[in-house]
Amino acid sequence: MEKILRINMSADGGPEIREEPLGEYAGLGGRGLTSAIVSKEVPPLCHPLGPENKFVIAPGILSGTLAAMSGRISVGCKSPLTGGIKEANAGGQPAQVLARLGYAAIVLEGKPKGDDIYKIVINKDGVQIIPDNSLKMLPNYDLIEKMKAEYGDKIACISIGPAGEMKMCAASVACTDMELRPTRHAGRGGVGAVMGSKGVKVIVLDDTGMPMREPKDPEKFKEANRTFVKGLQQHAVTGQALPAYGTNVLTNIINEVGGYPTYNFKEGQFKGASKISGETEAELEKQRGGVPTHGCHRGCVIRCSGIYHDKDGNYLTKQPEYETVWAHGGNCGIDDMDAIAKMDFLDDNYGLDTIEMGATIAVAMEAGLIEFGDAEGAIRLIEEVGKGTYLGRILGNGAEFTGRAFGLERIPVVKGQALPAYDPRAVHGIGVTYATSPMGADHTAGYAVAQNVLKVGGDVDPLKPDGQIELSRNLQIATAAIDSTGMCLFIAFAILDQPETFQALMDMLSAFTGKEMTADEFMELGKNILTMERDFNKRAGFTSKHDRLPMFFKTEPLPPHNITFQVKDEDLDKVFNW
Amino acid sequence: MEKILRINMSADGGPEIREEPLGEYAGLGGRGLTSAIVSKEVPPLCHPLGPENKFVIAPGILSGTLAAMSGRISVGCKSPLTGGIKEANAGGQPAQVLARLGYAAIVLEGKPKGDDIYKIVINKDGVQIIPDNSLKMLPNYDLIEKMKAEYGDKIACISIGPAGEMKMCAASVACTDMELRPTRHAGRGGVGAVMGSKGVKVIVLDDTGMPMREPKDPEKFKEANRTFVKGLQQHAVTGQALPAYGTNVLTNIINEVGGYPTYNFKEGQFKGASKISGETEAELEKQRGGVPTHGCHRGCVIRCSGIYHDKDGNYLTKQPEYETVWAHGGNCGIDDMDAIAKMDFLDDNYGLDTIEMGATIAVAMEAGLIEFGDAEGAIRLIEEVGKGTYLGRILGNGAEFTGRAFGLERIPVVKGQALPAYDPRAVHGIGVTYATSPMGADHTAGYAVAQNVLKVGGDVDPLKPDGQIELSRNLQIATAAIDSTGMCLFIAFAILDQPETFQALMDMLSAFTGKEMTADEFMELGKNILTMERDFNKRAGFTSKHDRLPMFFKTEPLPPHNITFQVKDEDLDKVFNW
Repeated sequence: MEKILRINMSADGGPEIREEPLGEYAGLGGRGLTSAIVSKEVPPLCHPLGPENKFVIAPGILSGTLAAMSGRISVGCKSPLTGGIKEANAGGQPAQVLARLGYAAIVLEGKPKGDDIYKIVINKDGVQIIPDNSLKMLPNYDLIEKMKAEYGDKIACISIGPAGEMKMCAASVACTDMELRPTRHAGRGGVGAVMGSKGVKVIVLDDTGMPMREPKDPEKFKEANRTFVKGLQQHAVTGQALPAYGTNVLTNIINEVGGYPTYNFKEGQFKGASKISGETEAELEKQRGGVPTHGCHRGCVIRCSGIYHDKDGNYLTKQPEYETVWAHGGNCGIDDMDAIAKMDFLDDNYGLDTIEMGATIAVAMEAGLIEFGDAEGAIRLIEEVGKGTYLGRILGNGAEFTGRAFGLERIPVVKGQALPAYDPRAVHGIGVTYATSPMGADHTAGYAVAQNVLKVGGDVDPLKPDGQIELSRNLQIATAAIDSTGMCLFIAFAILDQPETFQALMDMLSAFTGKEMTADEFMELGKNILTMERDFNKRAGFTSKHDRLPMFFKTEPLPPHNITFQVKDEDLDKVFNW
Repeated sequence: MEKILRINMSADGGPEIREEPLGEYAGLGGRGLTSAIVSKEVPPLCHPLGPENKFVIAPGILSGTLAAMSGRISVGCKSPLTGGIKEANAGGQPAQVLARLGYAAIVLEGKPKGDDIYKIVINKDGVQIIPDNSLKMLPNYDLIEKMKAEYGDKIACISIGPAGEMKMCAASVACTDMELRPTRHAGRGGVGAVMGSKGVKVIVLDDTGMPMREPKDPEKFKEANRTFVKGLQQHAVTGQALPAYGTNVLTNIINEVGGYPTYNFKEGQFKGASKISGETEAELEKQRGGVPTHGCHRGCVIRCSGIYHDKDGNYLTKQPEYETVWAHGGNCGIDDMDAIAKMDFLDDNYGLDTIEMGATIAVAMEAGLIEFGDAEGAIRLIEEVGKGTYLGRILGNGAEFTGRAFGLERIPVVKGQALPAYDPRAVHGIGVTYATSPMGADHTAGYAVAQNVLKVGGDVDPLKPDGQIELSRNLQIATAAIDSTGMCLFIAFAILDQPETFQALMDMLSAFTGKEMTADEFMELGKNILTMERDFNKRAGFTSKHDRLPMFFKTEPLPPHNITFQVKDEDLDKVFNW
């Protein structure tokens, strides 16, 4: 995994493939690598859809090894949604497969001259890039079926749906799961539009014949991995709650504490919450022959994923995640689990970020296009996006865009990206992360919900500003580092609570690279990544003024606590003081 | 004119009117006053359509006096198009009338709770604000007919069309002309959307019974005005070219020098230019019983305006301005003068910025919605905007928005606002103004075309970067000051070339206020205004990185000169060093 594969889409005779050593990027992986390449190589003032932007895909440092949970892949570029640097990551199979094929990163550069669309095929024999206009505007599920027919079922795919081809700012990059379905998405920031602007529809990976990546110290590595897995299994969140109910275990919890944004962030509790909770979802899955406990990639031991069947017992979609259920559910006043699952499928199929789309539909509801609670109407709106109608062109560009199209001012976005499923007025720590993350509003960038609500890794009162800056700072640093390892972020629950599990991760990294990784060095890595990202954003024109929530969070109290967001601007500016 | 009229649209019992003295704003007028109020009173991070924004209308320091050319009115707010401070100004009658009614400014504050729409009526007896939902979605021409029927033909009106009510970012604020038609627009930056967000459809002004504003030294004032008028009449631009052909005299000139942006800024010359030139336009007007030489307000002695009749000799629109003819003409590959005039009428009627709309249609053409040159298609697109269809919601929000909706990257905007009718690659000085003006791309903010092309007030090679920074700096300073006087910016041609005409303006200001105005003080006024504006923008999150042209102006050479924009970034950052 010491090579970078670069494909220049601008080359006169068609795309030009070259491989080069990692060089100055040696030692980096995942988010650390995508952010380093984007920050160093992309002119910060370029148009995100222009030839100067680069589209970078990188498995993590430990991806492709036998390490449990190491199946995350990072996608990086200048974001067309935020205008800043972007790393969005996904589970599924591609991280492991790409890493075993020996690539630390794929970098798509330039922009094709014509309007041909390409597939990239990588296996043990090498790399091919092939124009294939028969793929144009295929939804992800059809596309993957076609790839399976052509390349067999040992492949893993990274692809875009019609939304990415139409260069919509809510377009995601899909990764296939263990069942070879396009269900795991690098969702946020419009990364699918950038892949679309490079003219690449799908990357087909086949690691048949490639060995697992070998650590420098195999014994120490194996031992550390055992301790690590044990730690995950014994922790209540990663060992019980997530396997049993998936991420949607959060619906009842967040609703209970009054932090569940309802009706486009107007209330903090949703009457219909129990109808769309993880408990209900798992029960439906069991009844209908779906799967409530399931991993999204080889080597996952948390298994928070699942498979959701429709009323007739046929596959509908993978188990919708908490944020998806919230976005299309409570935030839109919708309490129909099947309708939400249908929307999850449509989003995956068209290649759309479920969070951005749910937030967008709620904004469209506020604009009066359909009523809050209208599940059929909401499904219809997503179908408009897939078809690329004029209305679809509006909605597919996200919540802020839709708000502007219809002249609204209550738009829950930071840096142009929609807020996820936790109201910052009732969960102050996550509000700090939303406001200050270089990624725009992103719960995964520093998941303070853990300490504010779940009381994992600490206990910080969610309704008060006290302690939230330090909390978000430390989480953002740790997250940037974890996002570099290829590890699923959910390991954080266990490593934050259990020192020996954290140490096991350090030991795995040390044993793999042969270079000692200490806790301090790990945090240093996180800081370096955030510094690069913020430096890019600064050169792109961002200032502290962009590290703010929309004004209405400061002026509209949120029921039931009836409080506003209380963290002071000058304190937000201290998040990155270390 | 020492009072500010403030109307709080948020008040519980309906809009609340209060009058207050100018106080700390004493001595300011026009842009100086709107920018001071916005900069001081509007929280820079508020949503432009939210209750925290303010909509400010201010006649100039000399408006309402007998001074020739003093009929400009400034409209200020935080712009929904640029996200920064905005001053857009217009001719027509309202400046003189509002000034004679004694108001230095009207400030609309807050936001109405319901969705009633209001008219404000101001005459010698006072101010009324009346809900009148019969006005909803009336186009400007119908609206003004209705106001005339109700309030007589001595009125002057400030209004929005359907675009402003729909809060579109290309929505203008219309001012009536001497024929009581809504033809003079504060066009840029979406100021109409902000008026719309305040729930105000029209402001009806009647100065019957009010005296002309009296200078402190009437004799000196009259004498200075005489010298001033003489200066305007003897200068080739203000005395001959503008009266004869209007602003559209520029089509042949700018096309000739290769700076006429054609096909969405792809080429610098348009084959059809002569068919849509000022000479052709004036000839058509004469043939059809229109008027080629005409003032837009009482007291205008340049008279660059006109009246354009259709083939049957019926009124179609006021004489379309150069930038309008360019935007809907050459930039879209359209050489049909009647079609352009029809689009000018539609823009005025719906209340839309002609520059933004033309630029938007060219972007839509590049996206393939219609072909370049398709005049009927272009008309249809504007009608979509007026109807508020989904496509109309896209187009009505401007060029950048439309580009994003359709996934394009070649979008000619700065700070979100479309570039006007002079290509910065062939007219470098105006490129510096586009890039650095706090208003976004705006030719009127520092019209370097004068020295680059017309050789008025200096001679600076348009194809080279040398000297452009100083040129734009001085013009931006002088313009900010002129925009405060209520004077039409076209006086600049004469005052830049003729010291005695410049001195006459200083004398008028001194005689009017009783306080000596020197050239230095005048430039100081301009600097103060720019400083306030830039300070607001800084607090809104703008940096030097926003003072840049889109990247394609640096990478795509423009025929026929085949050059790119050559001014260095670090030099752009010196514009406001004084």
